[in-house]
Amino acid sequence: MASIAVIGGTGALGKGIARRLVKAGHDVTIGSRSAEKAQATAEELGAAGYAANADAASDKDVVIVTVPHSSQGDTLALIRDKVGDAIVVDTTVPLVPPKVMRVQLPAEGSAAMQARAHLGPDVKLVTAFHNVSAHHLDSDHAIECDVLVFSDDIEARKAVVDLCPGMGLRGLSGGSLGNSAAAEALTSILIYMNKTYKADGAGIRFTNLTEAPAIP
Amino acid sequence: MASIAVIGGTGALGKGIARRLVKAGHDVTIGSRSAEKAQATAEELGAAGYAANADAASDKDVVIVTVPHSSQGDTLALIRDKVGDAIVVDTTVPLVPPKVMRVQLPAEGSAAMQARAHLGPDVKLVTAFHNVSAHHLDSDHAIECDVLVFSDDIEARKAVVDLCPGMGLRGLSGGSLGNSAAAEALTSILIYMNKTYKADGAGIRFTNLTEAPAIP
Repeated sequence: MASIAVIGGTGALGKGIARRLVKAGHDVTIGSRSAEKAQATAEELGAAGYAANADAASDKDVVIVTVPHSSQGDTLALIRDKVGDAIVVDTTVPLVPPKVMRVQLPAEGSAAMQARAHLGPDVKLVTAFHNVSAHHLDSDHAIECDVLVFSDDIEARKAVVDLCPGMGLRGLSGGSLGNSAAAEALTSILIYMNKTYKADGAGIRFTNLTEAPAIP
Repeated sequence: MASIAVIGGTGALGKGIARRLVKAGHDVTIGSRSAEKAQATAEELGAAGYAANADAASDKDVVIVTVPHSSQGDTLALIRDKVGDAIVVDTTVPLVPPKVMRVQLPAEGSAAMQARAHLGPDVKLVTAFHNVSAHHLDSDHAIECDVLVFSDDIEARKAVVDLCPGMGLRGLSGGSLGNSAAAEALTSILIYMNKTYKADGAGIRFTNLTEAPAIP
């Protein structure tokens, strides 16, 4: 079992991810701008600990960042000197409110490449969890959605793929860090489909894979 | 039934699309740079006609463009004054050989926006068929892959979504033309998965949609 911080762990996505990591038996620390809010969520989920974001990011195996795009830069700047050798999993989708159903990738190509710029070249950076509906994560039911995982660090990528089954999810490698653009863009399509096809959290499944991990 | 030209209809993707349109009963014209090559494919598929690309594009209900990204601009320039009121379906994925497993979207954001620039503002432009494996299309078997359809022209988009069931495919609207970036980027992920997970033409299915078209 791993020691994992969820930065922004009181938000919808962070709380959902944290719930499933706790259930999988990991040592989870809820991070938030306010340690008080973090405490309430940690108690609700039965998480091992809570802290303000920067403190939560220290001395962990994995640090999962679940903040809105508008807070991505500030949050990564806050934790970059704390994370050490931890794997940092950025979940940021570069939505541009109010037109969140429109794909509007940043000039850098992806929020992943923005994260790389914020963190510098030495942090072990992975991106994942772009397409899974937060409210499905924050539940006990099965989730009909694959998790795409991107990184230029093959070991770190594999570690995050391997976290998924315990969370009730199938993780799939999507390749290099820059490929994150595909999953980030897809989120706007899924939001569009929620409205257009009356979906309660549309998801995606990859088909025809003969050697992929089993669907949990 | 519609009169449909498949520009680049002797290539792998074009031939696969044409095969399924012929089977659905449409009046299909195979276009190619060489009318002779077009004739051979038309005869093989039992298509109604064949012609050089520019001639094939005239007087049709739908003109489907299936050429490599490197030929997209020249091909669209060739047909733009021929298509009139037809719906032009661009299938271009902006792969950058040899690194086709890397998402490398163009500065315009997508091949779709490049197509719009090539065709001008008045052509009815839709993009689709980015994610379906050509060799699955060029067969009679069931295809485990949804087709995302993008356009700013809602009627034209619906017409292309409605073409799909006859081809044995589920078409889904993905929203505005610029959203095509998501499907274009996803193609590199699917190529990556073909290699990584030993897939014979990886595909995608959208899940949890309650009011979507049935899977044929």
